[in-house]
Amino acid sequence: MTMSPHISLITLGVADVQAAAAFYERLGLKRSAMSQDAVVFFDLGGTALGLFGWESLAEDANVSHEGSGFRGVTLAWNQPDQASVDAAIEKFIAAGATLAKPAEKVFWGGYSGYVKDPDGHLWEIAHNPFAPLRDNGAMELAPPAEEA
Amino acid sequence: MTMSPHISLITLGVADVQAAAAFYERLGLKRSAMSQDAVVFFDLGGTALGLFGWESLAEDANVSHEGSGFRGVTLAWNQPDQASVDAAIEKFIAAGATLAKPAEKVFWGGYSGYVKDPDGHLWEIAHNPFAPLRDNGAMELAPPAEEA
Repeated sequence: MTMSPHISLITLGVADVQAAAAFYERLGLKRSAMSQDAVVFFDLGGTALGLFGWESLAEDANVSHEGSGFRGVTLAWNQPDQASVDAAIEKFIAAGATLAKPAEKVFWGGYSGYVKDPDGHLWEIAHNPFAPLRDNGAMELAPPAEEA
Repeated sequence: MTMSPHISLITLGVADVQAAAAFYERLGLKRSAMSQDAVVFFDLGGTALGLFGWESLAEDANVSHEGSGFRGVTLAWNQPDQASVDAAIEKFIAAGATLAKPAEKVFWGGYSGYVKDPDGHLWEIAHNPFAPLRDNGAMELAPPAEEA
């Protein structure tokens, strides 16, 4: 392989792997049988989600685990319409997430809000009328200009 | 929709959107025609990659942009074999990434290394012999125990 990057897996550093896994299970995800006490994997049908101890993840990457504040990363779960955005945000909150920004119409023409998972990882829940969703849930982005 | 979470898009906060986009273009990605001066999108065939200003991303999420150190998030690009891991790491370095951890055999039976993109976002380049890659590049994780 080694063509251009593909995101196979996103791993989130968490304080307590099993507690974080229980949160995502309340959202309807089912842990892969590859999961262990110290690491849990969820198959989302494309990019997988991993949960690993915050210090362990830093150690695995050979970097210091010291860090605080904004992480410069957001995960977005796109929805087919505004009502689904509201429902998904309610589902996150009911599972134990914190509301960071209520859903609202945004400048780029969509409808979006943000929640934080129990470890502070930010999820945007959005409806983007310019990027329809494929059957597998992936966004259909406009192709590069030279291919359009 | 609103079933269980899917990761439609990962957005990375960056210091300079166009410089960051040029880095990912050197890795072979082509920007979607939906991209603008202030935000760039790449369609990776599943979860899309977005690049947005660090402060703008925080503002969009209604959180402070102050943050430093380890971010508790890694993106993994899985490879079909060890040689492809080495080649992908070389490709990242040639494009301007920094090596965080040379590829090595790791305790869980795989082969993995880490690089940092020019904005410090960590990518793991890994071969996981227990999670074969599907045609679309997604990992094939063992299904949940009750479905196995």
